[in-house]
Amino acid sequence: MSASEMVMKTISSESGRVDAAMRSDLEGLAPEVDDLLMKVLQYCLFNGGKRIRPLLVVLAARICGRRDPGIYQLARAFEYLHAATLMHDDVIDNADTRRGKPAVHIRFGIVAAILTGDFLHARSMAIVGALAGSEALSVFSEAAGKMVDGEFLQMRNAACLNLSEDDYHHAILGKTGILISAACEVGAVWAGAGSEERVALREYGICLGSAFQMIDDLLDYQGDRGKTGKQVGNDLAEGKMTLPLILTVQHADGRDRARLQEIFGDEIGRREGLEEVSGLIAKYDGFALTRSRAEQMGALALSRLDLFPDETCAEEKAVLQGLVDFVLKREK
Amino acid sequence: MSASEMVMKTISSESGRVDAAMRSDLEGLAPEVDDLLMKVLQYCLFNGGKRIRPLLVVLAARICGRRDPGIYQLARAFEYLHAATLMHDDVIDNADTRRGKPAVHIRFGIVAAILTGDFLHARSMAIVGALAGSEALSVFSEAAGKMVDGEFLQMRNAACLNLSEDDYHHAILGKTGILISAACEVGAVWAGAGSEERVALREYGICLGSAFQMIDDLLDYQGDRGKTGKQVGNDLAEGKMTLPLILTVQHADGRDRARLQEIFGDEIGRREGLEEVSGLIAKYDGFALTRSRAEQMGALALSRLDLFPDETCAEEKAVLQGLVDFVLKREK
Repeated sequence: MSASEMVMKTISSESGRVDAAMRSDLEGLAPEVDDLLMKVLQYCLFNGGKRIRPLLVVLAARICGRRDPGIYQLARAFEYLHAATLMHDDVIDNADTRRGKPAVHIRFGIVAAILTGDFLHARSMAIVGALAGSEALSVFSEAAGKMVDGEFLQMRNAACLNLSEDDYHHAILGKTGILISAACEVGAVWAGAGSEERVALREYGICLGSAFQMIDDLLDYQGDRGKTGKQVGNDLAEGKMTLPLILTVQHADGRDRARLQEIFGDEIGRREGLEEVSGLIAKYDGFALTRSRAEQMGALALSRLDLFPDETCAEEKAVLQGLVDFVLKREK
Repeated sequence: MSASEMVMKTISSESGRVDAAMRSDLEGLAPEVDDLLMKVLQYCLFNGGKRIRPLLVVLAARICGRRDPGIYQLARAFEYLHAATLMHDDVIDNADTRRGKPAVHIRFGIVAAILTGDFLHARSMAIVGALAGSEALSVFSEAAGKMVDGEFLQMRNAACLNLSEDDYHHAILGKTGILISAACEVGAVWAGAGSEERVALREYGICLGSAFQMIDDLLDYQGDRGKTGKQVGNDLAEGKMTLPLILTVQHADGRDRARLQEIFGDEIGRREGLEEVSGLIAKYDGFALTRSRAEQMGALALSRLDLFPDETCAEEKAVLQGLVDFVLKREK
């Protein structure tokens, strides 16, 4: 079996277990909560997601030596918080669809979207606190706080062409890295890992999440809509400075930079300028440089796994390694 | 000093301590979070609130025998969750003002209001988990979940004239009672109270919160705008069935009930029908009956304090008793 086949197989089998744990939680809640809330929960949670965050909790716990099916009860909290965040994000960004279906606020209204997000938020915190203790809760809730902070940063950065790579890293940490990192770290805490393993997994998560986001930002310019299901050029249209453009601005000559500024500073320019901007990014190797940055991030992620011996946890290690590859090669 | 003077004095001195604990938390957060987020936090938290929920945490801990200034660090979490809830509620209800100032979403935009609510939500959970342990967190996060469920219930009940008193109690539990009750219970847990004391304080909180909400619903019909700062008739206009109207519908003859149905079933009717509806409520003693229900609730709250001996915690007990009176007599 190739590495990528193994990753796909693991994702498919483990996501089934995560889904089962979520379903059983909802069944327990059903008698106590409003029917509409239950309907929204079902709708937003079971949407064909790959359950990468819960999977990382499971793998991190196992690579730290704790194999116990109770982990799925903990792992689902990460899907809850992720879903809560997406729901509020879609309200905030006025996004109409999510995974090819109407977004929650389109299907059930903004009120239901805000409230169901709050419900999942509270439920996720309760689960982490109850099952993994206060240290894990502190990692988890700090991640939730940093995700919010990241959104504020993104607002601040909007339509600002002079963003540094550092600013970008900070922004994608909040957007993607911090929750993925928390999933790895909480799995380690749950397994009673030592601080060295805990730090290694936390950093693996940050690097994996950052690589993921870089590729995501690349696909926003170069993706094949037939594969991603998304239109290209969203980030540009919304005035989001992402790595391909940041690296281009760094290298562009005065004239091209002025032209980018002209396009980027104007809403209509951003909506209509995709082809020209893509041309300029290509001219200055912005796409290739972005891919290479993502690959460096992937290599860093892999290096954080060196700590874990091949003998005792070969399978988990192979999947964690395979995930890096999966993230770098993804086309959707 | 009269009982009501003592309550006011306690509220004033204790709210200062809660404010100080919140300020010190924000100062610690400031270097890590976006400036705008910090500005919104300051705006929404320091608005002249009486800090009743944190006060109840403090009093409950003390009446259970733990006197330790660390309680304020825990107590502030209740103000955070309360503020988070209000912020999201104001977005949901499209409310323009809060305590005479522009609501957060009016002043800073909907995005900032949703996100800052999420931030406070996460922070409040982290605090309760870290300082009071997983049992307290479970009480706290369950309360947060029930508050959301209560909002769904309220949506379901909107413009429905045939609401039972049971439905009403369920709705006000989510709206007010559950967080006040959780404040009392978490204070008790923090103090290491036995289950008898814990249950007594939980029930005291539910009754106090319910009495509070009943009086609130009464003031929405009968309040003096000069004192409450709010227009009367909001609940009617929004199609909210509250106790005065529920009790009236129960007692009204067929003709008056049909007339109420006519007014209540129509948006314009509800906006223009306040005087007529108030007249019908008065005709069937709906206001007096509501007040008497609130007083019964208050008496129940008081009875839950019998467990606590006058000798060892006379002051806290007197304030908890005084709060019932304060809630029943309030005109704003």
